[in-house]
Amino acid sequence: MRVSQLFTKTSKTAPADEVSKNAQLLIRGGYVYKEMAGVYAYLPLGIMVLENIKKIVREEMNAIQSNELIMTALQRQEIWEKTGRWSEEVVDIWFKTKLQDDTVLGLGWSHEEPIVEMLKNFVQSYKDLPISLYQFQTKMRNELRAKSGIMRGREFVMKDMYSFHATAEELETYYNETIDAYKRVYQRLGLGDDTYVTFASGGAFTKFSHEFQTICDAGEDVIYLHREKNIAINEEVIDEAIAELGINRDELEKVKTAEVGNIFNFGSQKTEEMGLQFTNNEGQLSPIYMGSYGIGITRVMGVIAEKFSDDKGLVWPEAIAPAQVYLAPIGTDEAVMLVADELYEVLTAAGIGVLYDDRDERPGAKFADADLLGIPLRVVISSKTVANAQYEVKSRTAAEPEMLDKAALLKRLGL
Amino acid sequence: MRVSQLFTKTSKTAPADEVSKNAQLLIRGGYVYKEMAGVYAYLPLGIMVLENIKKIVREEMNAIQSNELIMTALQRQEIWEKTGRWSEEVVDIWFKTKLQDDTVLGLGWSHEEPIVEMLKNFVQSYKDLPISLYQFQTKMRNELRAKSGIMRGREFVMKDMYSFHATAEELETYYNETIDAYKRVYQRLGLGDDTYVTFASGGAFTKFSHEFQTICDAGEDVIYLHREKNIAINEEVIDEAIAELGINRDELEKVKTAEVGNIFNFGSQKTEEMGLQFTNNEGQLSPIYMGSYGIGITRVMGVIAEKFSDDKGLVWPEAIAPAQVYLAPIGTDEAVMLVADELYEVLTAAGIGVLYDDRDERPGAKFADADLLGIPLRVVISSKTVANAQYEVKSRTAAEPEMLDKAALLKRLGL
Repeated sequence: MRVSQLFTKTSKTAPADEVSKNAQLLIRGGYVYKEMAGVYAYLPLGIMVLENIKKIVREEMNAIQSNELIMTALQRQEIWEKTGRWSEEVVDIWFKTKLQDDTVLGLGWSHEEPIVEMLKNFVQSYKDLPISLYQFQTKMRNELRAKSGIMRGREFVMKDMYSFHATAEELETYYNETIDAYKRVYQRLGLGDDTYVTFASGGAFTKFSHEFQTICDAGEDVIYLHREKNIAINEEVIDEAIAELGINRDELEKVKTAEVGNIFNFGSQKTEEMGLQFTNNEGQLSPIYMGSYGIGITRVMGVIAEKFSDDKGLVWPEAIAPAQVYLAPIGTDEAVMLVADELYEVLTAAGIGVLYDDRDERPGAKFADADLLGIPLRVVISSKTVANAQYEVKSRTAAEPEMLDKAALLKRLGL
Repeated sequence: MRVSQLFTKTSKTAPADEVSKNAQLLIRGGYVYKEMAGVYAYLPLGIMVLENIKKIVREEMNAIQSNELIMTALQRQEIWEKTGRWSEEVVDIWFKTKLQDDTVLGLGWSHEEPIVEMLKNFVQSYKDLPISLYQFQTKMRNELRAKSGIMRGREFVMKDMYSFHATAEELETYYNETIDAYKRVYQRLGLGDDTYVTFASGGAFTKFSHEFQTICDAGEDVIYLHREKNIAINEEVIDEAIAELGINRDELEKVKTAEVGNIFNFGSQKTEEMGLQFTNNEGQLSPIYMGSYGIGITRVMGVIAEKFSDDKGLVWPEAIAPAQVYLAPIGTDEAVMLVADELYEVLTAAGIGVLYDDRDERPGAKFADADLLGIPLRVVISSKTVANAQYEVKSRTAAEPEMLDKAALLKRLGL
């Protein structure tokens, strides 16, 4: 993409009311636009990052045989009344609205109940199970406060997945497969080393649920961590977990984290409340076992922005960067522009994302933008590099650039 | 995709309250699920069709240098008050909701005002223009009635694009480029021959806007058509248009149509109301000229379902079908399954979408599903075809199948 064709511009400042680092950096880079607290639009570069994250999540969910669909934001009262969760005393983050005939509708903050209701159309027999399905949905949650940028949105994108099984054992097996799939997701996103499967509060069916907690100073959670044993416990269940696991509190390290995923074993509680059953192979009506698995897509983007950034700006991991290369010709010398145009075409044709800074701007401004935007590799072309048939190449995290010839540059980019 | 792994099932019936043909067929095929009137979830096959439509639209919008972004559903009152469109007396299809502190928010039924407001951050000088941007957004419109299936939704997907220019002439040029881009979209979607650029009511700046109207019995619009001269006029402006164009009403044919797109020249009215200006190359503050361009993505899917269907079910155009091939082995004979598995792998590896009916079902049920789902090509493999080293191939629209050897089959699929 040519920078001259991008309508966004970088900015040295963020809105005064924006206190979170992730949103400050993302707004300054033109990745997001703040519509109001907790409500952000995703601008062209922001969409690219979001889609890169979604692609990784989609691939891993498809790999565990889940089907993608998309449910609706507008939701019916009677569905949520079946589990008692329509009440604002039970769920305090509902947004509600009304049809013209005054029928009250809810705006989806979760899709557990609507998915179970929908499945009544598709599940009758044991032959119809297991089922796993997921969506990337824009959720609406009427949060009282929203000061963590895109890490806690009133409107945000979530991948939510639900699975349905004939037995508790089959659910357990799939639940563990999902833990592995989630680990692959965070690994690919560059968060693997800092993300822990964490014991968290469970429900009627299981003592604990599991959260995926990423070490992050801007996070809103606190976990207790045993790095050696790879055990993590949300502080809300620390006493029960210590007792259950037989570990010593002194061995645990207290760290601030952000919850980037959670998985929940509902057993058959929710399906029974909603009346979703199946006929087993002996002709008997039987309960269905259900799991629920979430990844906050926009939150993950925020956590990555928090963790991978420095005083110059963002530092995207390659897997989700909006482009791999920031291509910056210096000056408007014809020979320079020819070499830059040619490299842009070669890389683009090879499927390498390039942000081509074709503006007539001074070098310092281009370098500052390359840094703020956090593009993994900066390639500078000047009269001097052209004369030497070289390219000035600098990784976003390197202190100094290096000079590479074309073959070496292409090799560096895996071509 | 293997049919055994798809959680949806076809159905011989649609909900009793569903009166529209498009929704009846799409629900029976498991493409969509009706949450409530005018509110549909898109199930796995439905998402595939939707994404195929979006891909075509995205390619054509990118080709006219538009930038993709995604705005928010939650919207602020003060933005819409600037143009007087917050009032429910002016806009009667608002859904509204409230923050915990009782601040009233709107749910996006359009994004004209929020986009203009957002651009104040990015447009100062003539160097920042022109700008074109677009999004695929889930719009919410509180329609009094919603009986046309996915052709008129209370929650639906729209591609809306907005362009901003320094002069009326530049806007005019881009407006005409967009007309051409839209024509390419409808051509690629298989609607080209039946879709007309139609004079419709304009605004303060232009006498007429333009709609793209597709001939469709289930449509809610009526246009007057001069097929030879390729002139189409929405009945709401028939008198003005006849006078303007100097044509004779007797030459016009009255037809029912569905509006699949509309484009609007706002001049500088909206940007002036909202206070979006730029500094021209002489240092003077100047008005910005704005165009607005919509395509109802889910409506287009509904129109295609209406137009391309018969008594057996849907008949998707190849460009948007959820798969190109419905692969139906007959029986569970090992030799048959081996040949079917092998073809599935070959086609999938070559990027041909295949719906592989690997269920242990009788032939009639598989054929009925292939027809209902509207997959362009059905390939049947039986003991007999295997013995003859052939494949039974039938186009969805052909009366009879034909026998092809493997080379001929692959050639038929463009391989």
